[in-house]
Amino acid sequence: MAIRTTNTPLLEIELNRLDEKPLQKQLFNQLRDLVLKGRLQPGERLPSTRYLAKELKCSRNTVLGAFDQLLAEGYLEGMTGSGTYISKELPDDMGDFANYSQKRSGQEEQQEGPGFSKRGRELAAMEKRVHRSHPTFAPGTTDAGSFPFPLWARSLARTWRYPKHDILHNPDPCGYIPLRKEIANYLRVSRGLSCSWHQVMITSGAQQAVDLMARLLLDSGDVAWFEEPGYPGLRGPLHSAGVKMVPVPVDEEGLSVTEGKRLAAKARMAVVSPSHQYPLGAVMSLRRRLELLDWAEENNAWILEDDYESEFRFSGKPLSSLQGLESERYGGGKQASRVVYLGSFSKVLFHVLRLGYLVVPENLVEAVASARTLMDERSSLLAQPALADFMAEGHFSSHIRRMRRVYGERQQILVENINRYLSDYLCVSPDAAGLHITAYLTEFAKAKVSDRAIVELADKKDISASPLSLFYSDPKLAKQGLLMGFGGCKPNEIEEGCRKLATVFDQAVYSKK
Amino acid sequence: MAIRTTNTPLLEIELNRLDEKPLQKQLFNQLRDLVLKGRLQPGERLPSTRYLAKELKCSRNTVLGAFDQLLAEGYLEGMTGSGTYISKELPDDMGDFANYSQKRSGQEEQQEGPGFSKRGRELAAMEKRVHRSHPTFAPGTTDAGSFPFPLWARSLARTWRYPKHDILHNPDPCGYIPLRKEIANYLRVSRGLSCSWHQVMITSGAQQAVDLMARLLLDSGDVAWFEEPGYPGLRGPLHSAGVKMVPVPVDEEGLSVTEGKRLAAKARMAVVSPSHQYPLGAVMSLRRRLELLDWAEENNAWILEDDYESEFRFSGKPLSSLQGLESERYGGGKQASRVVYLGSFSKVLFHVLRLGYLVVPENLVEAVASARTLMDERSSLLAQPALADFMAEGHFSSHIRRMRRVYGERQQILVENINRYLSDYLCVSPDAAGLHITAYLTEFAKAKVSDRAIVELADKKDISASPLSLFYSDPKLAKQGLLMGFGGCKPNEIEEGCRKLATVFDQAVYSKK
Repeated sequence: MAIRTTNTPLLEIELNRLDEKPLQKQLFNQLRDLVLKGRLQPGERLPSTRYLAKELKCSRNTVLGAFDQLLAEGYLEGMTGSGTYISKELPDDMGDFANYSQKRSGQEEQQEGPGFSKRGRELAAMEKRVHRSHPTFAPGTTDAGSFPFPLWARSLARTWRYPKHDILHNPDPCGYIPLRKEIANYLRVSRGLSCSWHQVMITSGAQQAVDLMARLLLDSGDVAWFEEPGYPGLRGPLHSAGVKMVPVPVDEEGLSVTEGKRLAAKARMAVVSPSHQYPLGAVMSLRRRLELLDWAEENNAWILEDDYESEFRFSGKPLSSLQGLESERYGGGKQASRVVYLGSFSKVLFHVLRLGYLVVPENLVEAVASARTLMDERSSLLAQPALADFMAEGHFSSHIRRMRRVYGERQQILVENINRYLSDYLCVSPDAAGLHITAYLTEFAKAKVSDRAIVELADKKDISASPLSLFYSDPKLAKQGLLMGFGGCKPNEIEEGCRKLATVFDQAVYSKK
Repeated sequence: MAIRTTNTPLLEIELNRLDEKPLQKQLFNQLRDLVLKGRLQPGERLPSTRYLAKELKCSRNTVLGAFDQLLAEGYLEGMTGSGTYISKELPDDMGDFANYSQKRSGQEEQQEGPGFSKRGRELAAMEKRVHRSHPTFAPGTTDAGSFPFPLWARSLARTWRYPKHDILHNPDPCGYIPLRKEIANYLRVSRGLSCSWHQVMITSGAQQAVDLMARLLLDSGDVAWFEEPGYPGLRGPLHSAGVKMVPVPVDEEGLSVTEGKRLAAKARMAVVSPSHQYPLGAVMSLRRRLELLDWAEENNAWILEDDYESEFRFSGKPLSSLQGLESERYGGGKQASRVVYLGSFSKVLFHVLRLGYLVVPENLVEAVASARTLMDERSSLLAQPALADFMAEGHFSSHIRRMRRVYGERQQILVENINRYLSDYLCVSPDAAGLHITAYLTEFAKAKVSDRAIVELADKKDISASPLSLFYSDPKLAKQGLLMGFGGCKPNEIEEGCRKLATVFDQAVYSKK
């Protein structure tokens, strides 16, 4: 067997003692590159380590170390007593890589690569919610500073300093059981749900909950009613599960079941926010609730009840959930429920926590749990024991009570200031709940400017309202208005913000002929 | 307008002073039931609160409170001065609910409800991984007790006692930036990745990472190569994204690219664990890596590199990642990468944390980030700042170093004890990495008993090995063996477990004729 021992390419090796990379790593990299670029060919014999060390003016250990690594990674092969060779097991056309590589780096335009799937491209192209970097009037923002973080930090530290056996071992796919018990109690007492803790499943936020349910309950191509206007955060997971969303108009009684039937009588699911419709704030009337339950019953369809921001109700008593109403109607019997209830801790605690929950019908608990295990194992347990303590010790409900007062005042101040500074442009009435007000553009303002244009202009003045029209999927139905969040704004910021916004409107309206 | 005032149904109301529910709530519930069951009809007038209080022997405030709630929920309507009525806005056929409800509760069999979608049923029916309640030999189990929880609790408390502005406001959808920087450094140094921190995206575990990528990069019906045998945890998310998995056999050099081409040359993705194939432990050879990169290049296909348990390598040097190799091959040029790299903290820290990461090609970062926002917003920030500190302070790498030693010893002890007690039944060689050993059934054992049968029997003796055949999708290809985890077993438990397992084999083999 004739073996070439060519040292020529090795002359290209240069070790740089000023480089922060160790010499061994430099040598490894350079030898590897010579192989990958085809300068050293499969079957070629390398000079001895002693020779190479002398040539490169480094210690023999450096060379041995680099060779070891190259052997381990399969670039080299050693035959005892007969030296070290470039691996014969490498593809024959290694030489092409060099040309290929050179050709590549010579090209001006960047190669695009395989790119997204159709589904991925659609997702990436979906209209984005407006994320602004300043908090004034940003919808959905909470007063994170009011959260009792020192208490929370203490709960966390207490859980994790010496974690209990139950926490580290045999975690339940549906979540930490003491937390699920606390949530079930809370929902029974505060939201009129009819559920046991077994039905409560912890998720990594409301969107993940929707994602899970869309994929377990619906097939790609299935139709779901979606409120028009509606919460964009739920569109992504539904869309990516292949669900066709049929926009169903909302009026002052909530989603119109009559319209839903007209548009898609045979839909497989209705996604609704009956307690406090997002973004318009309507409370679904009892009549509508019963109609909706009837429709679901007749069609064997699902109802996904998003109980969004229901904790922050300032006036009137909160209505019981659809989930509870359905159970009452069946006299608390054992009938299979059609309502999946969805809640989130993002607004009540702090939004970067990303913790939500589902209440699933009793007959589905086991199947949902095992399907969930396959899809995403379970949610992180990091927050769950601390949150269970936090709820059991009463910090949770006292925080809600405190914030309900704070947010109630802020809403009132916002409405007053809109009426004082912005009455020419915006028309507003108090909302019974939530963390934002939807203010409609007056006829006068509408004639001059669009909500999207105003939002763009306001953004330059550090004001982050959202355009109401953005929440519609059919531009023809879209009303013009602003979603103005007050959760994260102190009273003086609210007044200041309204004055600034008035200037923005003045300029937009009067700068035009 | 003739108004019926019938008190008859009201005679059914009974308030129980021994019940823990307040009287007002009892009255509310019972009145609501009378409406829902049609005993009280739309338009009927209720007696005065004073009269009702007298009849029910309760305070008038109790009745007023219940009426208020019923008014708020839409069951009643009040006309000033003319009394309180059952709401006319309720559907006309309310009476039917009564029959319906009775019919329902009279039925023996439980109504099934709408049920899962086809996709959901398939997911729920997928073969489950064996989750056992005892840790001896359970694959994937770590020594959670060795984790420095007091340090971790301190990091958490420090982050959350007075959280920084950056943490609460304007979170990045890809994760906390200091953590992404730490991960990028770690991957560059330890795993030979070529990446900047922008490319690192934090996910809620490896499964969520796969889920995200499957949906962004593949369409429903697209084909992906999947290692045979392979990691079942990745099947769920791929399946639920509608991806068709083609099992591609694995040999001692890792996934066979030749077989993959033969079976599905035009696949859109290859899902591989080149550093340490799960469950067989093969390290993908350099030749195969280059072949795989070639195939992906030619077909414009994706490679999803699962760098599973790569941290725990006991012998030999770890091979650089495919992601790094691809970049080396292109001479570090700007070419779009085809490799998405996937890592997890579950094994290195503790598994209930559920934190993982992706390294995505640079040209996709922005699109992945915005698509991710739509699907699941972002991962919880609860752990991220604490983990960034933990890494920056060196606790992370010193924990890995310590555990590598611990696990290396445990593997050695396990192999010794298998050879001592189980050599008739199991045939094993040390694995260079990971937290489990795959022991093959000997010809003698195979003739008498299956791996699944042994696992069932062992479970009764509190031993939780997994059957190797479970990890194959084609039963004809399945080899018989046991996955024996050693991560969570102390040395004495390992010996004890092997002795017990030998008894299980003895009984299974010799009880049969």
